[in-house]
Formats: sequence, structure tokens, C-alpha cells
Amino acid sequence: MDFMTRAAEIIGEAQVLTGSDMARYTTDPTGQFHSTPLCVLRPGSTQEVAALMALADEAGQVVVPVSGNSGVSGGTHNEGAAMLSVERLNRVRAIDTVARTAEVEAGVILDALREAADAEGLVFPVVFGARGSAMVGGILSTNAGGSNVLRYGNTRAQCLGLEVVLADGRVMDLMTALHKDNSGYDLRDLMIGAEGTLGIITAAVMKLAPKPAHAVTAMIAPVSLPAALTVLNRLQAATGGAVEAFEYMPRSFVEMHLARIEGAREPFDDPHDVNVLMELAGDAALGDVAEQVLGEAMEDGLVADALIAQNETQREAMWGRREAAAEVMLPAGPAFTGDISLPVGGLADFFDRMAGRLEEVMPGATDTCVAHLGDGNVHYGAYLEGATEEQKTAGIAALDALVAEMGGSFSAEHGIGSYKLGSMARHKNPVALDVMRAIKTALDPKGLLNPGKVIPA
Amino acid sequence: MDFMTRAAEIIGEAQVLTGSDMARYTTDPTGQFHSTPLCVLRPGSTQEVAALMALADEAGQVVVPVSGNSGVSGGTHNEGAAMLSVERLNRVRAIDTVARTAEVEAGVILDALREAADAEGLVFPVVFGARGSAMVGGILSTNAGGSNVLRYGNTRAQCLGLEVVLADGRVMDLMTALHKDNSGYDLRDLMIGAEGTLGIITAAVMKLAPKPAHAVTAMIAPVSLPAALTVLNRLQAATGGAVEAFEYMPRSFVEMHLARIEGAREPFDDPHDVNVLMELAGDAALGDVAEQVLGEAMEDGLVADALIAQNETQREAMWGRREAAAEVMLPAGPAFTGDISLPVGGLADFFDRMAGRLEEVMPGATDTCVAHLGDGNVHYGAYLEGATEEQKTAGIAALDALVAEMGGSFSAEHGIGSYKLGSMARHKNPVALDVMRAIKTALDPKGLLNPGKVIPA
Repeated sequence: MDFMTRAAEIIGEAQVLTGSDMARYTTDPTGQFHSTPLCVLRPGSTQEVAALMALADEAGQVVVPVSGNSGVSGGTHNEGAAMLSVERLNRVRAIDTVARTAEVEAGVILDALREAADAEGLVFPVVFGARGSAMVGGILSTNAGGSNVLRYGNTRAQCLGLEVVLADGRVMDLMTALHKDNSGYDLRDLMIGAEGTLGIITAAVMKLAPKPAHAVTAMIAPVSLPAALTVLNRLQAATGGAVEAFEYMPRSFVEMHLARIEGAREPFDDPHDVNVLMELAGDAALGDVAEQVLGEAMEDGLVADALIAQNETQREAMWGRREAAAEVMLPAGPAFTGDISLPVGGLADFFDRMAGRLEEVMPGATDTCVAHLGDGNVHYGAYLEGATEEQKTAGIAALDALVAEMGGSFSAEHGIGSYKLGSMARHKNPVALDVMRAIKTALDPKGLLNPGKVIPA
Repeated sequence: MDFMTRAAEIIGEAQVLTGSDMARYTTDPTGQFHSTPLCVLRPGSTQEVAALMALADEAGQVVVPVSGNSGVSGGTHNEGAAMLSVERLNRVRAIDTVARTAEVEAGVILDALREAADAEGLVFPVVFGARGSAMVGGILSTNAGGSNVLRYGNTRAQCLGLEVVLADGRVMDLMTALHKDNSGYDLRDLMIGAEGTLGIITAAVMKLAPKPAHAVTAMIAPVSLPAALTVLNRLQAATGGAVEAFEYMPRSFVEMHLARIEGAREPFDDPHDVNVLMELAGDAALGDVAEQVLGEAMEDGLVADALIAQNETQREAMWGRREAAAEVMLPAGPAFTGDISLPVGGLADFFDRMAGRLEEVMPGATDTCVAHLGDGNVHYGAYLEGATEEQKTAGIAALDALVAEMGGSFSAEHGIGSYKLGSMARHKNPVALDVMRAIKTALDPKGLLNPGKVIPA
């Protein structure tokens, strides 16, 4: 019997998709990555995932795990692979309101987890634009970041326990809900961010945070990036670290947003170069503290304009602009993109220097970005009608090189996938790459799990 | 040439210790673990560590890394090994006050790092009794906890970057100071907590925290453990999570402290079953908030007595009792000890049930503990004059079994070393153990680095 027939015996014929039924799995949200898999398998339990991997191990069939298909680094594409979708593992198994933990399956959509926590008066703090489609398995496998990392850390920081199916079908149970557990090597963190190359995450125990009583959301226009960081530091000091988000959008992004999104509006009456969406969360006094800090910042000439959201509609409009970043930047067809991190103080210098490098390799190109300013994390896009493949490659290399010179990383929160293999080869410590290869070979000797991703050949 | 002669050519003859010069490395602080190494090597740089490991790889010489020799799990003992002390790698290379990071070498003593941070108005928040001897390499290799985990997390949470010498002498440079860096597998966290079995940590980039302006230290006597947790929750809610330490000492510990430590004094005028050392840190209003919460807790019958430290002398006396735990509990010759974690709400029940189990396997035995109450982490000791080896083994097994039944871990923050290999074999997920073995073999195929630790045979 062939692989698909045997897989159908495990999960049922209806859960083995082929042909046009696979369409929504075969193209990524950037439109850059396409593949033609053998089939898409949709197991309904950890046991079925384990049985499918045991079968794949026996048959030598390559398997690519996929959850929400919202990744932008080409992490789930392989010609001829069996894609293994975890979407049917979609139960929030339990929420413990005393210990503030949620036991969830890998196919739970991020917004569903956020809503389940909210219903119990708690917060699951990972949040980003694709929260309506991204799933727990994917946010763990890419160690996703988002807008609240400043306060809560990235997805890794939210995870206490994991359940993982290995390449040979064995189930590794690390499902602890304890905050302290030093029982051997940290296999949990090894699996988080491994993009499905070392195992398939099927379930997790995630931390939940207390829901702050009040939130203050505002758009501010600092007069420069250094001024923006000064305001951020003042807000943190005055509120004891209550800043949840501090999101930078340059004028170029605002203009692309206005041009590409129906109903889009200017953030302020006058255009500003530096636009920051900020959100604080804490107690009832927070609104007064924020107004005072922003008032002083305006008096001190640090901030040119500020608007505090007065209701949920205004708040949603502010967030809507920021969360539309993928819809604004990607369909515009960037010549190349970057998801980079830098020492926080170096951002203004980076933008200046990058403009020069871009002009060298791609004369006439424009660029834009959105940035998690407090994390030093920039989502960068460069645009040039008719850019050649050579120019695109040179652009990425120039970006990588500048970031490396400035002590940054070519990969902050979107993962490596296929898109950043060249960056890994150029800039990751070669000994670290060798260690990664040794671990990959040790855990997946046949190279069945999402081969060709993360580690350059 | 033999191994020692060649090692002396790398690091100088004076840095190759033998015979009685090795005394302070060959017995652990519990007095339970002794070994007779071949020699103690004291390299002075990362390059020398690398050259020694290349030599060991060629010679097939087992190497056991050691830093402060303050571990209590027998993690640095092997007959005939070359011990590799990192104590001469003792530079604080740099402190960045803007990014709030410290680049330090593995032989920096914990207190020296704390003092270096303090001098810059910052805090390195890892703190425990052995802070005057424990070193950065050891606290990373065991993922040490301590009294401030409640607020800051354990040592893992403080680390951004690592430099590691592998078993074959190659240097793996992961020395980033970035908070966001998703460039491949999380090798940093794999090395942290691996107890020197996968590589030798030679340097690290550690996070520093802002120094709170004010601290409130107090001894309180809650009427029960559940009452203590209620007070902890009230303090956290009233202060926005400003509790840095919440340390439980039962009456039995206070009495052992009085009996064994010269100059020891009662914490209160009257004896109490539940004694808690608490510390808050934050702004100037904190003292008033703490007094109000404790006053209400006394009115509500949750707390029988409370003393707030009025000066540094009183504060030090309070901390002195808690930090003497190792001197109080270990020289008394415990039949067995445990460093366990439990779901926080289960602690009272655990002590009740453990008393019954202890009486079954070791009639007439007494027990005591100190506990990081907010983390559910208990340092347990059982005592019986003339306990047999069978009784000791049965005692550990009974403790492990109860902890497992209650959803806890047999290892919270002291590591596995040699002492907990049996616990690992009995209670760690067998698939996880296999994965650990595969990783160990992949990174140290000759089994040269601290063999026989962490992973049971």
C-alpha cells in the first residue's frame, strides 16, 4: 500500500487532502512561496500524529508540519512533502485560573486562546496582526514575538510545558505546569523555535497573565527616534514598566497605509515623520500618569502631537493601522524584506545608514518599516519596480551586513524558514551551525521533518 | 608526553594542581561527594580552555568543569578526571548601563557581579546563600534559582548570550546582547542547565535590572500556609507584583537554626509554626502599602505577628537566618534531602502527606525545610540518627513518588548531578531521556565532558 492509503487508514480518507483541496496550504501569505505537496494530512489527535510519523519513518516520507499558514519566511514549503496540519488539534483542554495556565492543543488559533483567557479574567499576551489565523503550534515553532514582547517576552517566555511527536513517532511528554523544573536538558526551549525540524508540537501548557484593570492607548508623534526612546523610558519609569506596546511607523508607512487600505485615515491633522502607537496597562491612575508624562514631553519639545484614544472605536482604529502592516507592506511587492533586531539605541543610525546602502545596490528604491521600538525590532521592506534577482539578493546581503556591523540579528521574530537560509550561512556562528546540524541528525536521522529549513546545507 | 605535561605547556605548570593542592575541589559542600581527580587545571582564557579541550579530545581524557564548588547535587565529581576550574576567568568584561547588560566570564563570583551591577545603580537579581562562592559558570550550568525567582525568574531568564567551549575544543560564540534573536535552534538554553555535560560555559551576557529605590523587609507569622499564600497574593495585588522574596521557614527550621548557629535569635517573641521572610522592592510608597496590607491581614486573622525591619542591621539579621539554611541543614547530616517543586496551592497538603510517608519508611525520623513559597519550591531534609542506606534510598523514592503524584518535580533548582540520577530514571519521561542521550552523543561522542551526570545510564 502506498503512503496515502496507509495514512487514510489512520486518520480517515476525508482527512487526506489532495489536488485543489490543498490550495489553502500551498501558498504562503507573502505570495512568494508555493509548493506542490503530495497531500495534506489532518490528524485529529496526538496519537494520530504519532501514528502518521511512525508511518512516515517507515516509508521514508518527508513531512512538513503546518498550523495557521501565517508565517512569512517560507517555513512550510517542500515539493512532494506530506503536509501535516494540526488544525484539528484545536481544544483548549483546560484553564487553571489559580495557577494562571492554559493547556492547549497546537491547532488552537491565537485569538481563540486570547478569548478563552479573557473569559476567565486573564490575558494570553502574545499578539500580532495574524492573530486570527496563527495557531499555537506555529507561534511556538517560530517563537513568535509581536507587539507585547516589551512587557511579556516572546512566545518562549509564555510556555511552561510541551508535548512533541518526534520524527519516529514517539511522543515526548514535557507537559509540566511548574515554573521551576530543572530535570535535565532544556528540551522544551530546543523545540520552541525549531520550526518543526526536530519534532511536531502537538500541545502546550502556556502561562496566562493577570488582566490589567485599565489600558491607555495613544498615538504620539515624537520629534525623532531618540526623542521617542526618551519618552518610552520616561513612561516606563513613571508607571513601573506598564508599557505594553510602543510601535513605530514612519511617514512612508502611513502613506502606504493611506494608499492601500480602504477607509484608512491620517493619524494626526498634520503629517509627522515619527508616529508611535503606544499602549499602557495597569491601574486606574494610569491615564493621569500618561497624560502628565506626555504633557511634559510636549513642553520639553520631545513630542509634536499626541492623541489618547477616548473609546474602544478610537483604540481599534489606532491598532488597525499597525496590525494592517502585512496587508500594507507585502502585497505592494517588496524587492526584499527584513525582520531584524538591533541594540535599541542604534535604530536612528541604522535607518540613515541603510538608506545609503540601499541606494548603492538598488538605485531609486524606496523603503518603509514598522518597528517594535522598545525591542529594537524592525520589519523592513524595500521597494523597486522591476528589481532584478541580483539586486534583491544584494539588498538582503547589504541589510544583513549592516545589521551584523551594528551588533544586531538578521532574524528577530519571523523565523528562518527558507527565506533566511542565506543569512544564516553568512552570519551565524559556524560552530553553532555545526551543533545545529549534529542535533538535527541525532533527532531526525532520516531527515524527514521539514528538511532544508532553518539550517543552511 | 602525558596529558598533564601537555596541559602544563598550554596553561603553565603552576596552573596544573595535583595532590593536596586539589583539596578544595575534591569534596563538595554537603560532605557527601568526594573524588580523587587526576589534576585540577586552571586556564586563564577562553583560548586556553579551548586548547585544553582539544588536548583532552585527542588524549581521550575525561574533563569535569568546576566553578565555585557550591553545588549540592554532586555535579563535579569523577574519579580520575581532569577538573577544569574556570575561577581565573574572572573578569566583568563590560557593563552597559543603557542596555542594562553585563558581559562576564564564567569565574566571576555571584556577589562580585551583584556588586559590579550595584555600583552602576543596577541589580543582578540572582541571589542565594552561597552567593559569596558560586560563580557565573555554575549558576548558568545548573540554572540556579534562589530567593528572587518569584520576581525575576531563574538564571536562565537573566541570560542573553553565551560563549561555550565544546568537547572537541571548538568555541561556540553565541554572545549576543539582543533581547530578540531567533536565528536557529536555542542552543543557549540547551547549554544552560546542562551541568557541563555538553560544553563548558566560559562567558555570558547577563541582563541587569533597574535598582528599586526602596525595599521593605519583614518577618511575618501567618497562621497557616494557605494564609501565607493569601497574604502573598494580597501583597502582589496591592503593589503591582513588587514581592521579591517570600521565604517560608517552619518552626523546626527556626529551632535547628537556634541550636546550630552561634548568636542565632528567635524571629518573634513567641514561637510560630509558619515563619515567612518577605521582601518587597519599589517606590517610596511601598512601606505604607506593606504596613496596610499586613495590618489588614492581622485584623483578618491571617497573620499572628509581623516585624518590619527598621534598618539594615535588622534586615541582615532576617536574611542571615534564611541564608544560613545550608549551614543549618547540611552539617546536621540529613538522611536525605530534596529540592522539589510543587503546584503552589499544594504545599500544605504535601507536608502533611510527606510526614506520613516518612514515618512509614523511616520510623522516628524528623524533617525540616526552607521554601521559596511563591515558587512552590521546597528544600527538604529528613533526619534520623543511624538511618540505613536502604532507608535513605526508600526515603528519596517516597519523596519522589509523592511529588510525582502531586504534579511536582523532583528537581527545582539544584540540578541533577549524581545525586538525582535515580530520580531521573524513575520519573523523567523515557522519551525525553532518550532525546537527552542522543544530544549528548551528538555533541560529545567520546563522552569526555562530565560523564555520568544528569542522564541516568
